[in-house]
Amino acid sequence: MGALGDGFFGAELACNGMGHVFIVDMEGEEEEVGVGGCGSVSESTAGIEDAVKVLLQGLGEDPDRDGLKRTPLRVAKAFRDGTRGYRQYVHDIVQGALFPEAGSNIGTGQAGGTGGLVVVRDITLFSYCESCLLPFKVQCHVGYVPSGQRVVGLSKLARVADVFAKRLQDPQRLANDICSALQCSIKPAGVAVFLQCWHLQIPEVLKDCSAQREPSKSDMQGWLQAPAYSCSGAFEDEKSSFGFDFFSLLKFRGVTVVKNQTKVSSAQHCWCPLKSQEMPLFNGHNTSPTNGTVLSKAGATQAAMLAAVTSILTSLGEDPQRRELVGTPYRFVQWLMNFKRSSFELKMNGFNHGIASFYKKTDGVHDQSAIHSELNLPFCSQCEHHLLPFHGVVHIGFFGSQELKAVDRSILQSVVHFYGSKLQVQERMTRQIADTVFSIVHRGVIVVVEANHICMISRGIEKVGSSTATIAVLGQFLSNIDAKETFLQAISNSTASGG
Amino acid sequence: MGALGDGFFGAELACNGMGHVFIVDMEGEEEEVGVGGCGSVSESTAGIEDAVKVLLQGLGEDPDRDGLKRTPLRVAKAFRDGTRGYRQYVHDIVQGALFPEAGSNIGTGQAGGTGGLVVVRDITLFSYCESCLLPFKVQCHVGYVPSGQRVVGLSKLARVADVFAKRLQDPQRLANDICSALQCSIKPAGVAVFLQCWHLQIPEVLKDCSAQREPSKSDMQGWLQAPAYSCSGAFEDEKSSFGFDFFSLLKFRGVTVVKNQTKVSSAQHCWCPLKSQEMPLFNGHNTSPTNGTVLSKAGATQAAMLAAVTSILTSLGEDPQRRELVGTPYRFVQWLMNFKRSSFELKMNGFNHGIASFYKKTDGVHDQSAIHSELNLPFCSQCEHHLLPFHGVVHIGFFGSQELKAVDRSILQSVVHFYGSKLQVQERMTRQIADTVFSIVHRGVIVVVEANHICMISRGIEKVGSSTATIAVLGQFLSNIDAKETFLQAISNSTASGG
Repeated sequence: MGALGDGFFGAELACNGMGHVFIVDMEGEEEEVGVGGCGSVSESTAGIEDAVKVLLQGLGEDPDRDGLKRTPLRVAKAFRDGTRGYRQYVHDIVQGALFPEAGSNIGTGQAGGTGGLVVVRDITLFSYCESCLLPFKVQCHVGYVPSGQRVVGLSKLARVADVFAKRLQDPQRLANDICSALQCSIKPAGVAVFLQCWHLQIPEVLKDCSAQREPSKSDMQGWLQAPAYSCSGAFEDEKSSFGFDFFSLLKFRGVTVVKNQTKVSSAQHCWCPLKSQEMPLFNGHNTSPTNGTVLSKAGATQAAMLAAVTSILTSLGEDPQRRELVGTPYRFVQWLMNFKRSSFELKMNGFNHGIASFYKKTDGVHDQSAIHSELNLPFCSQCEHHLLPFHGVVHIGFFGSQELKAVDRSILQSVVHFYGSKLQVQERMTRQIADTVFSIVHRGVIVVVEANHICMISRGIEKVGSSTATIAVLGQFLSNIDAKETFLQAISNSTASGG
Repeated sequence: MGALGDGFFGAELACNGMGHVFIVDMEGEEEEVGVGGCGSVSESTAGIEDAVKVLLQGLGEDPDRDGLKRTPLRVAKAFRDGTRGYRQYVHDIVQGALFPEAGSNIGTGQAGGTGGLVVVRDITLFSYCESCLLPFKVQCHVGYVPSGQRVVGLSKLARVADVFAKRLQDPQRLANDICSALQCSIKPAGVAVFLQCWHLQIPEVLKDCSAQREPSKSDMQGWLQAPAYSCSGAFEDEKSSFGFDFFSLLKFRGVTVVKNQTKVSSAQHCWCPLKSQEMPLFNGHNTSPTNGTVLSKAGATQAAMLAAVTSILTSLGEDPQRRELVGTPYRFVQWLMNFKRSSFELKMNGFNHGIASFYKKTDGVHDQSAIHSELNLPFCSQCEHHLLPFHGVVHIGFFGSQELKAVDRSILQSVVHFYGSKLQVQERMTRQIADTVFSIVHRGVIVVVEANHICMISRGIEKVGSSTATIAVLGQFLSNIDAKETFLQAISNSTASGG
């Protein structure tokens, strides 16, 4: 990370591309119990709300329909809250929590000073990818070697880390920011920060949304992992064993670090999957808003959406001209367009026709007893209340062996994809999938959807481990409890075996 | 849970023993991003701060010493924040987030209405035990069956659960409160709430603090688990399969429920380990503050501490005369007295003498190469910054085979217990243990302390999975990197094998 001066820390932050850093008076330790200062939410949400309305219209949605009415307000508040770090000031957090702590006078960090290396492991954070505005998960591990006969309150390490997570970031800059902030504010003998970051992977199924292709079995909604390491002071000294000790203590928690992982080259810097795979927003209408030609309707919509995202960046206090942000509006709009309403209606028309013809072929003989299950069909959808992804798996069970030939895994995956690829709520998606399958396989359908909602984990509520399950039951599964039990047990078994 | 009316919900809360429920205007969804309303922290902390000073004095501490100066403010804020649920109102949270959602018109909850059962699993919460004021962990699972063609925003289930967690609770009442609040505010076909609650177990080592006994190997700082289940509406109908479906969906996440666990009898109601094991606060001075006899000095201190805790309950808006709270001040003071300064100084004097005599016996021949390790020595201490427990294990390594006869596991456990049994910070405890062992085994000592800090997980910061590791290195371990590595690897191995 290079040498760190003791100078005014605000100046250092400004180097990271931030034009202005707000100084919030935290009244000593006021921030101990309230997340975010008073008034941080209501400020300047109006501009963001207007921009979100433009995005909803660009997605072919009616911003006044039920479910979307308050979405602009929700999204604006989530963006403001998710970037509250721009309005927080590290010194205010740390200064009230530096405690004199006599050491053994044997040597800095060697049970001298104040007792040696201190490591707080597994601090869970959420940040926003500066390349695409999607949230990413962070498992943060912070170590420091106290000096000057003082230690810092342990929770402050987490709070300082959160200040920088609540900005538009990439993993390495986040690690660097946390490291320099702690070095400058605590002035210890050294600081080490190791991050494990997970970015939502672009589902395979979304990568080619215009083609009528069969989803592959490898459509797992995974996360892309990237590590980042930053250190200062004593940790930079190759002769000292602080780095070794730090990683040893992480290892106790199952965090193993490959040597080369800690050196992130500039080539690895582009970790955002949306950045590495760019494509036209509107088929054949990838018109730049500034090229002066007469814009088509799609081009005008695109220009309006890009301008809307740019205005959101400005409202958050960011500089849309900052190098790392130049392509961000484009990528965010590109992500959203995966969930455009109209383009997928067209696709479904053709798809319905396909199912109908399959169904005619197999209509006739029924096996009354057979239950067929297709488990763990992956999906990625977009929560219409918060414009944030929710993703997981769908389990579908139905009666009838003859229909199997028509309603195979790829057909069901297409149904799941169709209902996932729009602004949705999980309850509705579950019912729609059940209704659609029931319209083909008339005798009985059961659908279970299990999902992680980014809106449950990245906003104020931060319920990290939570997951939502919904169930819809139609036809014979309503009366045949044994059949339902058999199906639910099959899911249990597939989960237990890591499926 | 019995039948639930649609009446004014505030009235129902009042039945739970709360004299007054504050109505906080959340400004629609203002609570989406800010935790707690503005001003909820600064109100009436002064009274609690004074009470905490009395408690610190009762523990033989100087409230003005470094480290404790701001403790009363921190504790007051944590108590206010930890009981903010008394000042939150469920209807305000839910009303803005009920979404019309057309169903299939086949039948309530059967993919009709709005698609059937909705379950949010693994919502992590923290609550305060009403019997002893220690926080307890909650893994909360909520299910409901939508009706009236409307669903509620998923995060609201977590927010409503948190309103009732942020009060003084016991598991069954918490489950009942969450269930009735959701039933009354969402008016679905039914609600089910299953909680897994973990109360900090009283460490064996603290159970008999006056005796100079040898700690047993079973001194694991465990958690006492209790389940709680509450349901309403369709879940109460034994003919419906909603209950079965609910527990099936929990099973996918590894939550298995023993049938009888869901029926908590009144006999099981007393789950707090401090309630089931009461003992005198001051040896021979268990004087009630109201018995009219002339109080000894210890008795006067006890009376002042009990009055202080009672005043804290009142400041939080609780009624100290509520049946479940009558013994709470006594139990909280009893818990704190485990960490009284002076009584343990006396104990250490005798203990030091014991070690010294052991040491004399074995002084002499040294084996320069042997490293001896004692791993996973349990401890429970009290964070002096927040008056909340931190607990975990201590690993100690040292050079010298001859000393082993004196410095065995029980001696080291006693050293750990001695330094844990007071108001502490982990960094200092690590150094003190290292210094003490080093004063006996002069050649080299390494100490690693791994701890979970309740103050990191139960307050606003809520970093649930985080853990703190500290390390102190003295003597030959400073220069002998191989020895240190061997020791750290031994910890890794013991962790990997679940030790």
